[in-house]
Amino acid sequence: TRRGVPEAILAEGKTAEEAATLAVAAVRSTGRAILTRAADDHVSAVVDALDDAVAFDRDDRARTLVAHAPDFDPPDLSATVGVATGGTSDAEAAGEAAVILEEMGATVTRVEDVGVAHLGRVLDHLDTLRDADVLIVAAGREGALPTVVAGLVDTPVIGLPVSTGYGHGGAGEAALAGMLQSCTVISTVNVDAGFIAGAQAGLVARAVSDARTETDEPTGADDA
Amino acid sequence: TRRGVPEAILAEGKTAEEAATLAVAAVRSTGRAILTRAADDHVSAVVDALDDAVAFDRDDRARTLVAHAPDFDPPDLSATVGVATGGTSDAEAAGEAAVILEEMGATVTRVEDVGVAHLGRVLDHLDTLRDADVLIVAAGREGALPTVVAGLVDTPVIGLPVSTGYGHGGAGEAALAGMLQSCTVISTVNVDAGFIAGAQAGLVARAVSDARTETDEPTGADDA
Amino acid sequence: TRRGVPEAILAEGKTAEEAATLAVAAVRSTGRAILTRAADDHVSAVVDALDDAVAFDRDDRARTLVAHAPDFDPPDLSATVGVATGGTSDAEAAGEAAVILEEMGATVTRVEDVGVAHLGRVLDHLDTLRDADVLIVAAGREGALPTVVAGLVDTPVIGLPVSTGYGHGGAGEAALAGMLQSCTVISTVNVDAGFIAGAQAGLVARAVSDARTETDEPTGADDA
Amino acid sequence: TRRGVPEAILAEGKTAEEAATLAVAAVRSTGRAILTRAADDHVSAVVDALDDAVAFDRDDRARTLVAHAPDFDPPDLSATVGVATGGTSDAEAAGEAAVILEEMGATVTRVEDVGVAHLGRVLDHLDTLRDADVLIVAAGREGALPTVVAGLVDTPVIGLPVSTGYGHGGAGEAALAGMLQSCTVISTVNVDAGFIAGAQAGLVARAVSDARTETDEPTGADDA
Amino acid sequence: TRRGVPEAILAEGKTAEEAATLAVAAVRSTGRAILTRAADDHVSAVVDALDDAVAFDRDDRARTLVAHAPDFDPPDLSATVGVATGGTSDAEAAGEAAVILEEMGATVTRVEDVGVAHLGRVLDHLDTLRDADVLIVAAGREGALPTVVAGLVDTPVIGLPVSTGYGHGGAGEAALAGMLQSCTVISTVNVDAGFIAGAQAGLVARAVSDARTETDEPTGADDA
Amino acid sequence: TRRGVPEAILAEGKTAEEAATLAVAAVRSTGRAILTRAADDHVSAVVDALDDAVAFDRDDRARTLVAHAPDFDPPDLSATVGVATGGTSDAEAAGEAAVILEEMGATVTRVEDVGVAHLGRVLDHLDTLRDADVLIVAAGREGALPTVVAGLVDTPVIGLPVSTGYGHGGAGEAALAGMLQSCTVISTVNVDAGFIAGAQAGLVARAVSDARTETDEPTGADDA
Amino acid sequence: TRRGVPEAILAEGKTAEEAATLAVAAVRSTGRAILTRAADDHVSAVVDALDDAVAFDRDDRARTLVAHAPDFDPPDLSATVGVATGGTSDAEAAGEAAVILEEMGATVTRVEDVGVAHLGRVLDHLDTLRDADVLIVAAGREGALPTVVAGLVDTPVIGLPVSTGYGHGGAGEAALAGMLQSCTVISTVNVDAGFIAGAQAGLVARAVSDARTETDEPTGADDA
Amino acid sequence: TRRGVPEAILAEGKTAEEAATLAVAAVRSTGRAILTRAADDHVSAVVDALDDAVAFDRDDRARTLVAHAPDFDPPDLSATVGVATGGTSDAEAAGEAAVILEEMGATVTRVEDVGVAHLGRVLDHLDTLRDADVLIVAAGREGALPTVVAGLVDTPVIGLPVSTGYGHGGAGEAALAGMLQSCTVISTVNVDAGFIAGAQAGLVARAVSDARTETDEPTGADDA
Ligand SMILES: Nc1ncnc2c1ncn2[C@@H]1O[C@H](COP(=O)(O)O)[C@@H](O)[C@H]1O
Ligand SMILES: Nc1ncnc2c1ncn2[C@@H]1O[C@H](COP(=O)(O)O)[C@@H](O)[C@H]1O
Ligand SMILES: Nc1ncnc2c1ncn2[C@@H]1O[C@H](COP(=O)(O)O)[C@@H](O)[C@H]1O
Ligand SMILES: Nc1ncnc2c1ncn2[C@@H]1O[C@H](COP(=O)(O)O)[C@@H](O)[C@H]1O
Ligand SMILES: [Mg+2]
Ligand SMILES: [Mg+2]
Ligand SMILES: [Mg+2]
Ligand SMILES: [Mg+2]
Ligand SMILES: [Mg+2]
Ligand SMILES: [Mg+2]
Ligand SMILES: [Mg+2]
Ligand SMILES: [Mg+2]
Repeated sequence: TRRGVPEAILAEGKTAEEAATLAVAAVRSTGRAILTRAADDHVSAVVDALDDAVAFDRDDRARTLVAHAPDFDPPDLSATVGVATGGTSDAEAAGEAAVILEEMGATVTRVEDVGVAHLGRVLDHLDTLRDADVLIVAAGREGALPTVVAGLVDTPVIGLPVSTGYGHGGAGEAALAGMLQSCTVISTVNVDAGFIAGAQAGLVARAVSDARTETDEPTGADDA
Repeated sequence: TRRGVPEAILAEGKTAEEAATLAVAAVRSTGRAILTRAADDHVSAVVDALDDAVAFDRDDRARTLVAHAPDFDPPDLSATVGVATGGTSDAEAAGEAAVILEEMGATVTRVEDVGVAHLGRVLDHLDTLRDADVLIVAAGREGALPTVVAGLVDTPVIGLPVSTGYGHGGAGEAALAGMLQSCTVISTVNVDAGFIAGAQAGLVARAVSDARTETDEPTGADDA
Repeated sequence: TRRGVPEAILAEGKTAEEAATLAVAAVRSTGRAILTRAADDHVSAVVDALDDAVAFDRDDRARTLVAHAPDFDPPDLSATVGVATGGTSDAEAAGEAAVILEEMGATVTRVEDVGVAHLGRVLDHLDTLRDADVLIVAAGREGALPTVVAGLVDTPVIGLPVSTGYGHGGAGEAALAGMLQSCTVISTVNVDAGFIAGAQAGLVARAVSDARTETDEPTGADDA
Repeated sequence: TRRGVPEAILAEGKTAEEAATLAVAAVRSTGRAILTRAADDHVSAVVDALDDAVAFDRDDRARTLVAHAPDFDPPDLSATVGVATGGTSDAEAAGEAAVILEEMGATVTRVEDVGVAHLGRVLDHLDTLRDADVLIVAAGREGALPTVVAGLVDTPVIGLPVSTGYGHGGAGEAALAGMLQSCTVISTVNVDAGFIAGAQAGLVARAVSDARTETDEPTGADDA
Repeated sequence: TRRGVPEAILAEGKTAEEAATLAVAAVRSTGRAILTRAADDHVSAVVDALDDAVAFDRDDRARTLVAHAPDFDPPDLSATVGVATGGTSDAEAAGEAAVILEEMGATVTRVEDVGVAHLGRVLDHLDTLRDADVLIVAAGREGALPTVVAGLVDTPVIGLPVSTGYGHGGAGEAALAGMLQSCTVISTVNVDAGFIAGAQAGLVARAVSDARTETDEPTGADDA
Repeated sequence: TRRGVPEAILAEGKTAEEAATLAVAAVRSTGRAILTRAADDHVSAVVDALDDAVAFDRDDRARTLVAHAPDFDPPDLSATVGVATGGTSDAEAAGEAAVILEEMGATVTRVEDVGVAHLGRVLDHLDTLRDADVLIVAAGREGALPTVVAGLVDTPVIGLPVSTGYGHGGAGEAALAGMLQSCTVISTVNVDAGFIAGAQAGLVARAVSDARTETDEPTGADDA
Repeated sequence: TRRGVPEAILAEGKTAEEAATLAVAAVRSTGRAILTRAADDHVSAVVDALDDAVAFDRDDRARTLVAHAPDFDPPDLSATVGVATGGTSDAEAAGEAAVILEEMGATVTRVEDVGVAHLGRVLDHLDTLRDADVLIVAAGREGALPTVVAGLVDTPVIGLPVSTGYGHGGAGEAALAGMLQSCTVISTVNVDAGFIAGAQAGLVARAVSDARTETDEPTGADDA
Repeated sequence: TRRGVPEAILAEGKTAEEAATLAVAAVRSTGRAILTRAADDHVSAVVDALDDAVAFDRDDRARTLVAHAPDFDPPDLSATVGVATGGTSDAEAAGEAAVILEEMGATVTRVEDVGVAHLGRVLDHLDTLRDADVLIVAAGREGALPTVVAGLVDTPVIGLPVSTGYGHGGAGEAALAGMLQSCTVISTVNVDAGFIAGAQAGLVARAVSDARTETDEPTGADDA
């Protein structure tokens, strides 16, 4: 694994056979395969192609499939990442992020349906949001949720724009532009890029975890 | 005046002389002239060209100039319009709206510097916002303020996107797209279109005022 | 219901089962369910899932389904909203707006097929247009109808751009841009956002209705 | 002259000296020079550089300069072109078109300030508009005027979008898109392309004039 | 028929039944129905719905269907319109234009496959192109053909951009922009707007025909 | 200070007087003022307006001014942030980020002129890049540097697109799009948003520093 | 064949029958047919329509079909073209380029999966890349590979942007913009334009081959 | 010099002093300095800063300055590059290309003012165009010239779009899109990127020259 970021196979645009071949190779070389944007036929092909001893975890809403070889030794970080969503349509991208984070060994806390039009629900979950070491906030339509959350916490926030919304600024473009223009401090990833948001938060979590567990190592030492 | 909306002279793009000529004509025919986006040389030329008995009201931040002939009889509505802004850069567009509203006879209440990154300040002014018959909410950058306000009140909200922000989605495009994609119910006007926002809110205020003061007239009667 | 705006379930992008689950929950909690952009399978699933005592109203052109529990007590406003369209392709968005308005208790008057290329028909319906307290004017292609109507009436006009038209400026973008650039006073909503146009006009209608029926309540009192 | 379209020198972006050199050459070879988008320094330089016997015609609003050598024999067409504008900001582009048309020998009739928000004024000038052989209709902002006019006449209409309007769709883009999306029959030219609109109308006028004056020539004969 | 432009039914986006109903009404009121962008099911439904005495003309490449009642009296113009295309992908839009022109009574001459990359073929057809009273030149990809043709003829040219081409500037946007930027004199219509191009050329042809056949009528008289 | 992010005054677009007033207020309330995008007249006005005991730090390339009151107690983090640039035109945005980071108490290491066209220089600085806890990589034109760096390190990378480059994709749009499309894991901020990049990296640095120095506090505790 | 560039039939958008007819004509007149973007039904139809003596070469990943008549005499160039790709999704466009190059007679060397995120692999193939006379470098997402390669070689590089990548800058737009903004020296073709990239590289290869094999011909002599 | 491409200093956006410092360094290290987009103050500062023995070549239209140390040994290629332009506004970008080519040692032949609207002039220069080893064709507005030229020659053509043209597709965007969509075989560079076009043509010229002069070296050998 490069940078502690697990390689993932973007199933969308690949045939079931191609996905299966790549998954077999990944399990063979790294003990693990992760498929994103996987349809049911990708999943069947991969499950068929792999050994019965391999453990599978399919997440329908996140459209992911994770396969662990029997001897796979999962990483474990001493850090927490919060993943918040504004509505049900944000579930796929946010779920993809959560799966990657779990595969990177982070503790993931989910906060769902906290839209900007219902501020009460955001305020209710403030403690959970503040307890994380880093936050991913997913939002479609006008994409204002990361801005509102970042105004309330002391934690780095990564905005994840989602391709909901029709008409002008639809397909996530308004959400992305809004996050880039945010009047608070956030960084962002591309529309629907749950994998990138998750992996970036995972890299931050790993930096925090390393710092938390390091004893007398030099600052910022490269542990790759 | 068409539709109870006072004619305004868009000074920008006109010479001082052109603006003065139009202002003289307006005062002569309607007893009033309103200049928007007026620079100081427009103001001087208009003041010079008009009679000493004319009363002037220059608003520097709104970049407006209002001239009333001695016998001008201002309209008076029995309705209140709230005008909220997220920051000082919204002052010009919001001020332009406020001037038009006052010229239409509405009572205007201003709520300033209530940005989405400081939700406390929004909540502090909730009563004022709720007391209005219709609200204009101006916001630049990501333009989330009208959405947040509309989630908290029971009043029609008109979003006024402002051309702040640099980079992708700058020049007010992110704010406009965000308002069009709002997950609450708002309508919007073009970027920096303070005059349109003010006049549209004024038309709503007039409808409310007419309803409030009508006795036994038929519903929706045309009073033009 | 928030802001007197009935919650609606945007069926498009949801499975029939998801729509049905949400509809059952909505009827249970509020006595009513409204589906927008509902295909026939959404409708069947919702009708199947709900009690026989529930009354249904399916509008094919508007693609809406409304369900009322036997004890549902519909709101009633003392205000009229006019909904005008330029052609048959505007019927879906305009119909969605009309359904929401009726559910908010407004009286809705429809004026159809009054395109800018046939000014005579616009002029024929001027009295109906002038009799409304607020107008929604839907238009596709170049979207000029709201501008033409607003030049003829004394009523607030909300422009509703519709995604007709091919080539450059198609998918409603020319209509939206034209309404934002209108040389008259209108506010606008996003392309095909019939729900938002209807709900915003409903909020104005409610403000007018409240004013019409209030006796000695303080101005702009919050009735939520 | 190619196609009967007089060569014009686009002064903008050229130095005064470059413009003068080109003008001298044009007068020498064709007996005429036409400058478009000419600032005052272009004009002075050209007037200085040319013979005293040359007759000049400067149009300030159109920003054109026309120079005729003493022996220049102007063309004369037996056809009329109407040029209509929605407002004063359309005067430059429309004026440029009118100057080209006059240089091509057409009779030009001007109809000014007939905006879509004031339909009465359009209807007042209907006879003038209908009497032309071909019409140019200039409009900025939402650019609806050519559509409205084309719905009322039997004449070919060329839309000329003008770069007025700020915010989304500004710089003439909304007007251009609206004309391309027009629900009537018009063709269009680029934003502010008064020269092109004038020359295209002039080519139509020439075809009409040729037809009007031809006796027994074969149909569509090439007179170049 | 408004403006001598026959009403056409845009079949695309309509059901076969809707198209048939509209066609029956058109034949009843005007003796003729014209369908554009008509698929085979539209055609069958219309043929079924109409009387056996009605004469049909289906053009597969143009995707049009024309129906004439037995007593329909077709117009006849004394003018010729040339329709040129750069390649086979331009055939649909150009064909649509040609059908409309024929229904308006113009003589149509077609010049096909004269792309800018094969200048020889353009030069071969120069006489045909020069013999027309007005030209429609359709082109996709970079859309340069109308410019090249206009540089060679003395006739008004209407550019018709076609939605061929993939990647940046695809879907006809490069062709449209190129025609608007043409360094010769042309006007243009929207991408794939064969109907508009044909009708506009037809209006010019009618003006020429009227001029050709008028005897002592006043210039530009309105014959509607 | 909200979120440990120091408030900064965006001088650009403000008069020197406005900037000075805001700076005086900031020093009074927080002991510090930071101006970004400050021109020389902003700097003079601020220096004049503040007490002689205030210590100033002007960075010409970063266009920042920092003012510390005598009793200001700067924060100190136990974390390192690397700031890399591709060329001299990236210096302003990167410098702005560095100043914010220093004001947040981070150790900043700069790596300059490591463009993708000269990979050798990138490889030379690999140790410095790997020693940081978090990296900001600024790049204009095609913006590929953050991708190349992220492929070589184990550290979170924040991309900072810079508005260099002319023609298509200029003004930083190609760089931004390239970072959003990166085939490695990075998050990004808006074009030229050095302040946001610096503050976001500072929040990560603070999370790492807190983890490094915490003893037995609960994971992710909120220290605000 | 024009310019030594073999004519190719773009099968996409054509029916199988149309493709077959064009292929038969091409084989008859030039001894060869090349189909690009050919689906399986195009291939079957062409194979069926052609003589049994014709030799076929179907490339599934490149989606091409080449047919050679028995007597076809393939060209042969004394020049090598390298074709490099960043990932499997670049295979179609790159393969199309390679097929055209082979048909033009060039020697083609392929270098696959050398992404910018794995610089090691690029460096491993440096000798192969340097040995070519001209290079095509295909890349999707952020499109940085041609820039990185061009910084390492002495050979002309043609960038071929590929339509991978989702969200903002997807569909190859970020890759294209990045190549146009490259801080090294490359030229580019449109997104997915494998045919154009191949043919342009082939023209360069032919120029080099001609130079390599010429004896005492004049410089740059036209061998067409 | 990397890749045989001389380093150039992009003066625009740099102060005269910065440019002079860079020029002195360049002359010292390589015996030569090339400034592009150089204004007069850049030129003066560079001339002042350099030794009197340095030979200068200022090209006003190309906006370049070349400085050669007394001992500078210019490269010499056995290859010819043609540079064609459509009009005077293309002179700056084309001139920049020509200067770079001369500095790379190529023979440059210029063909000027051969616009697509005047095909005769293109045909007049066909021999010159065909005699080159590689062509750069610059064009603004609709950018059709490279397409027309490429259809007439057997030589590789590099399109150079120029930022002329106003309105939609202005600033060179229509020209760029048209070249990318060209129905002939060309590659392109960014708008106004004369330096890139020149250097890319220079790399091709060098490959041809190497082939022309090589005796028994291996194919494609790297001579860096
Ligand atoms: N959902 C995703 N979004 C963005 N990148 C992804 C995603 N899933 C996998 N990837 C990345 O894409 C690369 C695989 O690309 P590919 O070779 O096309 O399967 C992996 O190395 C991941 O870094
Ligand atoms: N057609 C529609 N357009 C825009 N918003 C809608 C529409 N229908 C429902 N909504 C809103 O979307 C919300 C439901 O979103 P969802 O949770 O995705 O079903 C409701 O609260 C409505 O405010
Ligand atoms: N205002 C204008 N807009 C568009 N084209 C123009 C204009 N004025 C002159 N032209 C055309 O531009 C050509 C002159 O271009 P130039 O050589 O740049 O002066 C003339 O042949 C005219 O066809
Ligand atoms: N006119 C130009 N257009 C594009 N790139 C240029 C130009 N002039 C110089 N360059 C390139 O830009 C680099 C210098 O950039 P800079 O360090 O900003 O001066 C040189 O290495 C050249 O490759
Ligand atoms: Mg959301
Ligand atoms: Mg704001
Ligand atoms: Mg319409
Ligand atoms: Mg107008
Ligand atoms: Mg074509
Ligand atoms: Mg860079
Ligand atoms: Mg790639
Ligand atoms: Mg040109």
